[in-house]
Amino acid sequence: MVNIKLVLEYEGTDYYGWQIQPRVPTIQGELQHALAKILKQKVKVVSAARTDRGVHAKGQVVNFKIPPSFPTSRLLQALNSVLPPDIRARKVEEVSENFHARYSARYKIYRYFIYNHFIIHPWFRKFSWWVRPPLNCELMGEAASFLTGKHDFSSFQNKGSPSSSTVRCIEKIKISRKGFLISILFKADGFLYKMVRNITGTLVEVGRGKFPPAEVSDILAARDRRKAGPTAPPQGLFLWRIIYPEE
Amino acid sequence: MVNIKLVLEYEGTDYYGWQIQPRVPTIQGELQHALAKILKQKVKVVSAARTDRGVHAKGQVVNFKIPPSFPTSRLLQALNSVLPPDIRARKVEEVSENFHARYSARYKIYRYFIYNHFIIHPWFRKFSWWVRPPLNCELMGEAASFLTGKHDFSSFQNKGSPSSSTVRCIEKIKISRKGFLISILFKADGFLYKMVRNITGTLVEVGRGKFPPAEVSDILAARDRRKAGPTAPPQGLFLWRIIYPEE
Repeated sequence: MVNIKLVLEYEGTDYYGWQIQPRVPTIQGELQHALAKILKQKVKVVSAARTDRGVHAKGQVVNFKIPPSFPTSRLLQALNSVLPPDIRARKVEEVSENFHARYSARYKIYRYFIYNHFIIHPWFRKFSWWVRPPLNCELMGEAASFLTGKHDFSSFQNKGSPSSSTVRCIEKIKISRKGFLISILFKADGFLYKMVRNITGTLVEVGRGKFPPAEVSDILAARDRRKAGPTAPPQGLFLWRIIYPEE
Repeated sequence: MVNIKLVLEYEGTDYYGWQIQPRVPTIQGELQHALAKILKQKVKVVSAARTDRGVHAKGQVVNFKIPPSFPTSRLLQALNSVLPPDIRARKVEEVSENFHARYSARYKIYRYFIYNHFIIHPWFRKFSWWVRPPLNCELMGEAASFLTGKHDFSSFQNKGSPSSSTVRCIEKIKISRKGFLISILFKADGFLYKMVRNITGTLVEVGRGKFPPAEVSDILAARDRRKAGPTAPPQGLFLWRIIYPEE
């Protein structure tokens, strides 16, 4: 069998997240269905990250095994002719047998988009969180600086996480603004359940002036989910890119 | 009564175009419904242009009369709290009694977006025409140069136009490319029915190398719709801006 690495892009609006579930549309379900149709056999796919309901992906990475008889060069077009239009296969390559989309990943990058104006453009409403009060990005950046590095992120984790350790290392949080659109980029070795959305919800509280940036340091130290801000809604979140060691 | 000029933005995907019709959602229908709810009386609105089913607007302009008892300053927020999220009121102002959204307009600007790559990003599919073969924008620009100025545009008009004259003056057609996204901007004193989409369909034929740019001059001279290219699909078209003499 040949191990395939596939880069996948999707609009999560109409899906119940990545993970396959009975009777509802999921990204994994659509992909496995498409592969079964193309390869005439059941295929199990592994993803670098499980995106939640309504979350998008610009660069989700998955891997799966296909029989050597199927030409890899045909796979990209075959997938795109079977997958629904809100899921697109962007890149296919043969990788070594021991490549695993989740375990081989070195860094994960997410981006969260906030539309910060009292009227939202209709085309942004499914791809950003509409926050009406003006946000102070400098304060948000200051708050974010307390979160980079290796920490126990229990305060920003929702229940339902499968991970045993709650320690993660955030390499970078970069906040930028272009017109009314604010982007928050997160790069880390991994994220706990809803961690990006919980940090975002907390940074937005800071940006609105609800509490000073330094308080984020106390929230982190408390290791108590109730201390942090609300969970930001899913439609602003994009799984942006997965970085592997060889890259 | 006070004459109000309103700038409106909408995603046309789920609407049967601007013009009100029984039993189907339309932009005019939604707007009149919202105004009736706010003002507790029937209001008739006039638009600068009638957009077709599935066509979007970034800067549609409409006007209507409201009773002087209703404070204009409250209208923007009131409209946005009643209108569906894919229609947004962006700007409201009181104008002179003789301002008419359609008849007072001096120039109309449309933009048409083409996504020119063999895989389309999921987020562009409702806002652009997906054209897979690589387009030569230089050839398209050359072809467009034959269309600027004052001409009889019968060859680019679909049946169903209410206009008596088929002469229009195109001030500018500007083609630009950013990554895989091609934008064609049209500025004219007015457009015939489906004229922008018919010109776009023709320019794309040129961009694909189906015929040389100079042939567009012959198509124009023929005054025969059958000579021009196909009608480009609606989802790539945006009514971009209406310019009035005082601006």
